[in-house]
Amino acid sequence: MATLIVPEIVPSPIQDSETLKQAFQGWGTDEKAVIRVLGQRNAGQRKKITQAYQQLYNESLFDSLQSELSGDFLNAILLWTYDPPERDARLINDALKARKKGVKHLQVIVEVACASPHHLMAVRQAYCSLFECSVEEDIASNIQLPLRKFLVALVSSYRYDKEVVDMNVAKLEAAHLHESIKKKELDHNHVVWILGTRNFFQLRATFACYKQEYSSTIDQDILKCGNDDLQALLRITILCIESPEKHFAEVINSSVVGLGTDEDSLTRAIVTRAEVDMVKINEEYSRAYKESVADAVIGDTSGDYKNFLLTLLGKKI
Amino acid sequence: MATLIVPEIVPSPIQDSETLKQAFQGWGTDEKAVIRVLGQRNAGQRKKITQAYQQLYNESLFDSLQSELSGDFLNAILLWTYDPPERDARLINDALKARKKGVKHLQVIVEVACASPHHLMAVRQAYCSLFECSVEEDIASNIQLPLRKFLVALVSSYRYDKEVVDMNVAKLEAAHLHESIKKKELDHNHVVWILGTRNFFQLRATFACYKQEYSSTIDQDILKCGNDDLQALLRITILCIESPEKHFAEVINSSVVGLGTDEDSLTRAIVTRAEVDMVKINEEYSRAYKESVADAVIGDTSGDYKNFLLTLLGKKI
Repeated sequence: MATLIVPEIVPSPIQDSETLKQAFQGWGTDEKAVIRVLGQRNAGQRKKITQAYQQLYNESLFDSLQSELSGDFLNAILLWTYDPPERDARLINDALKARKKGVKHLQVIVEVACASPHHLMAVRQAYCSLFECSVEEDIASNIQLPLRKFLVALVSSYRYDKEVVDMNVAKLEAAHLHESIKKKELDHNHVVWILGTRNFFQLRATFACYKQEYSSTIDQDILKCGNDDLQALLRITILCIESPEKHFAEVINSSVVGLGTDEDSLTRAIVTRAEVDMVKINEEYSRAYKESVADAVIGDTSGDYKNFLLTLLGKKI
Repeated sequence: MATLIVPEIVPSPIQDSETLKQAFQGWGTDEKAVIRVLGQRNAGQRKKITQAYQQLYNESLFDSLQSELSGDFLNAILLWTYDPPERDARLINDALKARKKGVKHLQVIVEVACASPHHLMAVRQAYCSLFECSVEEDIASNIQLPLRKFLVALVSSYRYDKEVVDMNVAKLEAAHLHESIKKKELDHNHVVWILGTRNFFQLRATFACYKQEYSSTIDQDILKCGNDDLQALLRITILCIESPEKHFAEVINSSVVGLGTDEDSLTRAIVTRAEVDMVKINEEYSRAYKESVADAVIGDTSGDYKNFLLTLLGKKI
């Protein structure tokens, strides 16, 4: 469930474009108006606004935002305003083009690959349109083994998306996974194919079987394999399949915990999930960290950036 | 270029449905009318006819065809009448479910995977809708190594579909391919990733580089690696990328050469390519085998089946 709140009566895309244009005019920018418009519209409505704005003013809304806003607020607004497949394609491309290619940067690829199969397909189409190559091609040429093998398989999947579970398959594949993990062969074909092709319901049944048969969770057993990047990526993948809300609660918490804030991760988590499952993420976050996601945002951010994130979290600002 | 001939004035889908219904009524079936209607309509028109037929008679056109026709003619008409993504999903499923899983049966997977990226994506969606699992999942659980690894990668691709070629990449990857082939490691990750992710224009440049650098074609070098299934499948893949018309000319020729006819292969080649590149296939066929595809069909088939294939080849019957 989404935390995004769309008002009961929504202005037309043309009216919204006019409000935005007005907010950009004259000295300074009316950031509150930008937040009030874009921060309270769903993906379909935002898309119509960007089209209407282009038609009305013969100018890209993204260019206008870029010349009027800055910093973390700008980044968050841009990500939010892109069509979700384009947004995720850009996030993946940024991760692949970043100089650092640690798991922290690459986990966005797992997050997108573990979203709905239909969305992943749309992201792959958007990636080709934007970057003149396929996402799997870019992974294969930018990421080293063994992460490469796993990530190429993950983004290439088009999983069956309905609840069809075969308990015999679950049992058999739990055994395959257990054997590979026991031998510390985390990049074994079995691991890659099972996690990279099976539908999410089937995988959840396989993980449950694993726990039942071997009295520890697959996550605990992978943890015993050492502490390298593939291990970390596999654990993120399993979490994103089993319980994405837990994964994103963890992302948000690590972005605010300690001194300083990792704004990129905080923005990504809130922008990509506000329309998907932020209510569940907030429940999970409150359970695990004894405060709400909004409290975390209030404690670690300020100004328009804070107001925008809070708006996406459904708060009146 | 297509050999399919659509008349200048096309009856409405309702008129076509009525003609078909009439052809099915009474004693016997008017097969010529069925061929005249379905054999002279493009994919979009056929789809509208199946929808109109269902609405008019509350009955599936496929069921009617199945109860009225039989044998190779029925198989060909059904394949032709399915929406192309559904047709190819069914062909792949038949190949995976067949008891024999030799290269001859599996080559249809390569043919579909080497069609346009957009079509492959539509086939994967159709596969999920029809068979409650993904095509890569079915390959991973039905095909043995090393074919499995290669075929999973091939069907999972969503390649960039425009002409963007990097000659440095071509040179580098020709070297990677050459090294793997020299070591007879045809299932090496390099081979799988290069053939499974790069766009077709880039791959053609890579194959050209290969020939220039190593003075034999990649196909000739793979041929020297022995004579197993993976080798055969790789050669088919390279041919389907370099020159699909040559591949399909070979398929048609092997289906008619010698005693007996392989109707399944003959039907598949003509039905799947009549709207795509059958003119080029026919040119290639005539060059290589000194007769036209139509001559081959006339020599090896008869009756309604023959008439239907000839219609798809653009012949007046």
